[in-house]
Parts: sequence; structure tokens; C-alpha cells
Amino acid sequence: MTKVITNKSINLMEKLSLFSEHWSPKVIAEMNDYQFKLVKLKGEFTWHKHEHTDETFLVLKGEMTILLRDKTIKLCENELYVVPKGVEHKPVAEQECQVLIIEPKGVINTGDADSELTADNDVWI
Amino acid sequence: MTKVITNKSINLMEKLSLFSEHWSPKVIAEMNDYQFKLVKLKGEFTWHKHEHTDETFLVLKGEMTILLRDKTIKLCENELYVVPKGVEHKPVAEQECQVLIIEPKGVINTGDADSELTADNDVWI
Repeated sequence: MTKVITNKSINLMEKLSLFSEHWSPKVIAEMNDYQFKLVKLKGEFTWHKHEHTDETFLVLKGEMTILLRDKTIKLCENELYVVPKGVEHKPVAEQECQVLIIEPKGVINTGDADSELTADNDVWI
Repeated sequence: MTKVITNKSINLMEKLSLFSEHWSPKVIAEMNDYQFKLVKLKGEFTWHKHEHTDETFLVLKGEMTILLRDKTIKLCENELYVVPKGVEHKPVAEQECQVLIIEPKGVINTGDADSELTADNDVWI
């Protein structure tokens, strides 16, 4: 897809209201070769890692947990965490949690994992 | 500064409570060679551009306007805008506005402009 340059600001809550499915990131903006993606989480994701990049989670609404092999990161509203490159992680959310993900274009949600949770990539909303 | 890897999530509001000066971005996290910076804006900034990179503004509290030469971008809470690479812009905020900036490490706040508003770079909080 060609680069989208908007003429106005992008409202995160408006964009979040446009979809309801879980674990299916939607691209809302690009910055250089990075993308901003909104995602709704509920339940347990799969353990995976991204070999070539860090990945940022910013919680907009609700709460989530990022399980790492050696620790657990709890994220509440307005909290962010950068999962380092190559580090195995498993996102979990007991109740629905709405998240802004920032990462390079082309990153697959399930990373290196062979999973039925792998979502279509580069889906804009 | 060497890369900071935190063992817990970063709370944006807590970090914002740690400083009060305007137009002085504070780094709170890194993702690959990008940085997340918090800044408080009030008044008028200087016209400038960043020749080599896009720059993302996400409003956390308050309202701001980004003047471009050919249009005006209004940003309310939970709205983001990506200023394209090489595009002249002038951030303005009538009342204090609290913003998360995302851009590559090393970007100077005043870009190509010769300005007394140029802030120290890579200041962590």
C-alpha cells in the first residue's frame, strides 16, 4: 500500500469504534517505515518473539499483562512497554484491553510462532 | 546514553508529573533507534522542519494546533498526527498541552531552525 498522508489528525477512540474483533491489528498511520496499529486484546495470545525488532505496547483502555519468560509486565491505561527484539512474550488480557502498537511496517503479530492467531498484515482502518 | 531496558511499564502521567517546563522534550523509552518523548507545550513554537524524518505527535492532555504552510491540523486528546519529513511546521498551544512525541533518536526539537527554543537532546526522565 502506498504511504497514507492524512490532512487531519487521527482520533484513536474513533478508530477503535470501527472494529470489534480481538487480536487483529489495524494500521492507522505510518511514520517513516514504522506503523501505528490499534488492537483489541482479550484472552491469551501465543508465545512468540520478533527476531529483528523491538515492539511497543501503549494501553489506551483497560489493562493487560505481557508475560516474559523471566518476568511479568503489568500495563494499565496510559502505560507503555517496549518488548526488546528477540525476547519471547505472551500478551494476556482478562477483560478487553485497547492498545496502540508501534513497530516497523511488515511485522507479523505472531512473530516466529506458527499460530492460528496470525492476523492479516497491513490492514488499514 | 546506553539503551535503557525497563523491568516494568512506563506510566505516562507519572512521568509528566516530574517536570513543568515547556518545549523541553524528555525521553522516556526507546524502540530500536526511535525514542518516545514527553513534552509540555504552551504558546507558539518556531517554524521548522526535519529534513530526514517524519515526526509523530500524540496529544495526551489538552489541545494543540500544528500549523503547516498550506493547512492547519487541530489535535485534541487521544489524537495523533504524523508531520511528514521535510514539511515545515509550527506547533502552537493556547493552553498547556501534554504530548507524546515519537521520532528517531537524535532529532532536534527545532529541526533546521536557528532558535533559542532549541532544547537539550536525549534528556531522560
